[in-house]
Amino acid sequence: RRGEMAKLTQLIDNEVFRAYATYAAIVLLKMMLMSLITAYFRITRKAFVNPEDTASFGKGEAAKKYLRTDADVERVRRGHLNDLENIVPFVGIGLLYALSGPELSTALLHFRIFTGARILHTFAYLIPLPQPSRGLSWAVGYSVTFSMAYNVLKKAWLL
Amino acid sequence: RRGEMAKLTQLIDNEVFRAYATYAAIVLLKMMLMSLITAYFRITRKAFVNPEDTASFGKGEAAKKYLRTDADVERVRRGHLNDLENIVPFVGIGLLYALSGPELSTALLHFRIFTGARILHTFAYLIPLPQPSRGLSWAVGYSVTFSMAYNVLKKAWLL
Amino acid sequence: RRGEMAKLTQLIDNEVFRAYATYAAIVLLKMMLMSLITAYFRITRKAFVNPEDTASFGKGEAAKKYLRTDADVERVRRGHLNDLENIVPFVGIGLLYALSGPELSTALLHFRIFTGARILHTFAYLIPLPQPSRGLSWAVGYSVTFSMAYNVLKKAWLL
Repeated sequence: RRGEMAKLTQLIDNEVFRAYATYAAIVLLKMMLMSLITAYFRITRKAFVNPEDTASFGKGEAAKKYLRTDADVERVRRGHLNDLENIVPFVGIGLLYALSGPELSTALLHFRIFTGARILHTFAYLIPLPQPSRGLSWAVGYSVTFSMAYNVLKKAWLL
Repeated sequence: RRGEMAKLTQLIDNEVFRAYATYAAIVLLKMMLMSLITAYFRITRKAFVNPEDTASFGKGEAAKKYLRTDADVERVRRGHLNDLENIVPFVGIGLLYALSGPELSTALLHFRIFTGARILHTFAYLIPLPQPSRGLSWAVGYSVTFSMAYNVLKKAWLL
Repeated sequence: RRGEMAKLTQLIDNEVFRAYATYAAIVLLKMMLMSLITAYFRITRKAFVNPEDTASFGKGEAAKKYLRTDADVERVRRGHLNDLENIVPFVGIGLLYALSGPELSTALLHFRIFTGARILHTFAYLIPLPQPSRGLSWAVGYSVTFSMAYNVLKKAWLL
């Protein structure tokens, strides 16, 4: 049993896997941050969707007026959904890519560009910056994941 | 080839990994359950979004009236999206955490608290329970994932 | 260090893991394709949600009329969300299943049926095909993931 334990620990000692673990954790934490930003805007803009969330503002009509959509809240929510649509494939395909034995320098290039692009994407979405800032940062992240998927399929292909 | 097979099987023999696999499967199944609950409410409340789903109710206006939103359906859908936003990071970061060689007891503590918190969150959302039930159960799950991410980054950090 | 590298590469040499990597990459790429289809419909239908995306159509009212929902755009978005709700559990549970040492033929059966079902589901959603096409293809994919989860829990169960 102890031997197994050691073997597992070795995975995290591999440099490509450590790089993957670092960047995957960073982008997942960035995605989780969107929940806090949504909560911040919901509270400061007083814009809720669940009746039980407005109970502290009183009963009846007094509370009901806070059940509304707010442009800033909706913007953060769209950014959050875009993260789910893009960061989840990165985490999944990135794991397979990290386990397919790429060069550390090539792997780091992929992970760094993706992470940078998604951080830029968040700023472009939330500030918001004029297009094509958001579009380009989205496309860069998308291309990185696509490149990793190509490398995985080239290495693993077994239909 | 047989040797490789054996080596892979060993990963599932490692106790921390087995605990991770158990809880990850449970919370993912719990998330999948939301689809069934949504379908149940769509059918019992007769509230659909795709015209082809109401074809069995007749043609034209007879069917069109069932293309509507329903408060209960929307509530389950929000719970489902909240699961995606929180369970996905847990599964991704939890895998890295399980592979970073934590103590079994510490790992079990993380997995159990997260799983319990998300089950409570679902009940708090669907019944619904008065706040801060839903808020607190969300925050507990969020903190567990954050704690695992911190441990992963402490162990793996390679930028 | 070199020895570790070799050990990692071996994971991708395992046939069940290679099959998993192939099908996981394919369904994740299919999910990513939904972003491109959404963008295509947003541009051809001129239906946007962010004011900064319509800036190229002029200022004020001239641009504002393109901030609207479109039935085709919303349909693709629902298909994309359904992919997130179903492909993400497949990728997570599928990894655990691949690492639990199943027979290659059984594993391939699971991966192939799921992938086929989700491709059918996308066609059924986007064309759209009359029900129960979409419902059945959804149920088949759902059942495959459930079957893999059952196998994982039977092998790994450690609460």
